[in-house]
Amino acid sequence: MSTQPGPTAPDAAAPDAAALDAADPLAHLRERYVGSETPLVYFDGNSLGRPLRVTAERLTTFVEAEWGGRLIRGWDESWMELPLVVGDEIAAACLGAAPGQTTVGDSTTVLLYKALRAACALRPGRHEVVLCRDDFPTDRYVAASVARELGLTLRWVEVDPAAGVSTEDVAAQLSGDTAVVLLSHVAYRSAWLADAEAITRAAHDVGAVVLWDLSHSVGSVPLALDEWGVDLAVGCTYKYLGGGPGSPAFVYAAQRHHHVLDQPVTGWMGHADPFAMGPDWAPAPGIRRMISGTPPVVGMLALRDTVATIAEVGMTAVRAKSVSLTSYAIELADALLAPLGARVASPRDPARRGGHVTVDHPAMREVVARLWERDVIPDYRDPGGLRVGLAPLSTSFAEVEAGMRAAAEVLASS
Amino acid sequence: MSTQPGPTAPDAAAPDAAALDAADPLAHLRERYVGSETPLVYFDGNSLGRPLRVTAERLTTFVEAEWGGRLIRGWDESWMELPLVVGDEIAAACLGAAPGQTTVGDSTTVLLYKALRAACALRPGRHEVVLCRDDFPTDRYVAASVARELGLTLRWVEVDPAAGVSTEDVAAQLSGDTAVVLLSHVAYRSAWLADAEAITRAAHDVGAVVLWDLSHSVGSVPLALDEWGVDLAVGCTYKYLGGGPGSPAFVYAAQRHHHVLDQPVTGWMGHADPFAMGPDWAPAPGIRRMISGTPPVVGMLALRDTVATIAEVGMTAVRAKSVSLTSYAIELADALLAPLGARVASPRDPARRGGHVTVDHPAMREVVARLWERDVIPDYRDPGGLRVGLAPLSTSFAEVEAGMRAAAEVLASS
Repeated sequence: MSTQPGPTAPDAAAPDAAALDAADPLAHLRERYVGSETPLVYFDGNSLGRPLRVTAERLTTFVEAEWGGRLIRGWDESWMELPLVVGDEIAAACLGAAPGQTTVGDSTTVLLYKALRAACALRPGRHEVVLCRDDFPTDRYVAASVARELGLTLRWVEVDPAAGVSTEDVAAQLSGDTAVVLLSHVAYRSAWLADAEAITRAAHDVGAVVLWDLSHSVGSVPLALDEWGVDLAVGCTYKYLGGGPGSPAFVYAAQRHHHVLDQPVTGWMGHADPFAMGPDWAPAPGIRRMISGTPPVVGMLALRDTVATIAEVGMTAVRAKSVSLTSYAIELADALLAPLGARVASPRDPARRGGHVTVDHPAMREVVARLWERDVIPDYRDPGGLRVGLAPLSTSFAEVEAGMRAAAEVLASS
Repeated sequence: MSTQPGPTAPDAAAPDAAALDAADPLAHLRERYVGSETPLVYFDGNSLGRPLRVTAERLTTFVEAEWGGRLIRGWDESWMELPLVVGDEIAAACLGAAPGQTTVGDSTTVLLYKALRAACALRPGRHEVVLCRDDFPTDRYVAASVARELGLTLRWVEVDPAAGVSTEDVAAQLSGDTAVVLLSHVAYRSAWLADAEAITRAAHDVGAVVLWDLSHSVGSVPLALDEWGVDLAVGCTYKYLGGGPGSPAFVYAAQRHHHVLDQPVTGWMGHADPFAMGPDWAPAPGIRRMISGTPPVVGMLALRDTVATIAEVGMTAVRAKSVSLTSYAIELADALLAPLGARVASPRDPARRGGHVTVDHPAMREVVARLWERDVIPDYRDPGGLRVGLAPLSTSFAEVEAGMRAAAEVLASS
């Protein structure tokens, strides 16, 4: 169905999408994605990235040649190393991290639990975890559970969701009793981009460790985990890393912590010698000790294609496109949606903004439902947020324009 | 390369494989599997099942039509329910469990951790977990970790690995302080099949709960979890359930426990209302509270094909074929390997034996390595165990004969 503006659309003096697409050095990547030839507008690549066309073929080849052909031998030949290999691919392309500090597996929630337990174990005798009410629910729920198990207190950074987490707000909660600072690098609702380097430094100043949730920044915002001195980080791979629905997460731990890194889900695959099958668990050297069960090989395949695409063009180019897309979406929101009473709820300073834009209006729940009926697919986030996620590799400026005009049409008729 | 017996092969008076295959009511299933047309002998379907040919097509269709076509809408349309839908499919085909008590996700190790924590929480004030030194390493390592966190004592059932876990051996460790009995239904090395019903009853007699690890029985040995009164169970899906390398695990919890079931990895997907994104975690009703993160949709696809195949023929037929295969393997081991000093280390009573057969000889590590070079693929398990895993849906009697004759040839020349 058409997503072109109808006769009721506001007349915007917005920039020309065609000119922006023509000047986009990453425009050629879009055609590599399944469905990019259709008129569907996809504003949810920050929640579930589109698949690359090569991914279907990769999975078929895997089933027939690797799983079906190599069978159990595949473990010795490559799969045992795959979580570390793919971890290093993510680290090199997206994290600003040297090899040997990142591994893939579990869900983000499970890795967050393991990483937070490991982070708390790095600071025995301290009793507080600092986090933010604006963070993604899983982070808060897992932190509450860990705090209950370990007898810790949660200290909440109070933020105005639109203003985001400032380093000063975090610093105000820090003390000599802070064990861990657990924060989202990019806020899932507002797209506020925290100053990870400054906050990490502030945490270290009081002797605490940091655990960053990179789910909404990895593959969209350049990261420099080693340079920033980050202790631990986890992230999701089905958003900007294109791993497919429910693909496994990743965890980073700085090498300086490896020798004492202690997490409670002590399975055979994190053992120093898994096939000795001995009486007691002994942690593998390095990041492998964060692994618990058998690595999710099938689930890890798709994300490699997206990570390779990011590596091909580099995160600097990805970020530049991302900033252009979100800036354009904000211009269109100001031109088309603001006159209807909507308000941009994401930072206007691109240096403090991740890869999505949220536009608030009390009617947005209903607007999003009606947009879906028109094959315009944004997300909705309470309260009243139209969330426009703009995956840089697969989204065109024409798509942004079509989607924002459709949103304006629907809002105007609400 | 050939796996036919060479001139040095012992001359066995074993039953005729061709006649056994001709009489096998499940023989027609073998051709549905990738690679079944090759001369390769696969004795590791109990560790990584072969893929069905339909699985490659299912994955391609999924990427192009569902993930690529439905995008984020797939969550509302079907994926949110998929862990419970696939859980119920496994329950109906394999577990003897009514719907609503089984869900899929995480690795076996992670689910074991969550299930053991939940099991311990069902019996507060009790301080002992009963388990077995012969069980799979992950089970022992996770139990040790949970015991350390909760201040519990592990009580070990001492067994002769060849004789297996008797109900009396378990009962000897039980007391009014037993919180949980954690045991493998089929032992990973010997294939000893525990009497799950009697052991569950003995545990209940002292007020304890049971947590069964079904990894080596599900899809091979019929289960009746509801009838036996089992409290909790976990299992692996990449063995007899054909889910592919590292496919997600499943957990069963009896409905009577759901209202108080409490596990520590409290993620958004186990929340009563995930998209409310409220301040506090509140458990979903039913088995969903065992879910932590976003369900591994891509990883769950392949196993559905095998579970559907099992449902098509029924576990009674699967078990009959499994018993025939293992009995035939033991006959061949007695005829061909015993004269060379090897010894069957699995139970000879089929009623006490799972779906694989282990044959011990000090030279087996080297024998297995040499068999792999001949495209005969068993597994090796310390100390000195040639493990012959016989997936009932994909293994022919001719394959058993060819593999056991090859093993005899190699052992004879060691």
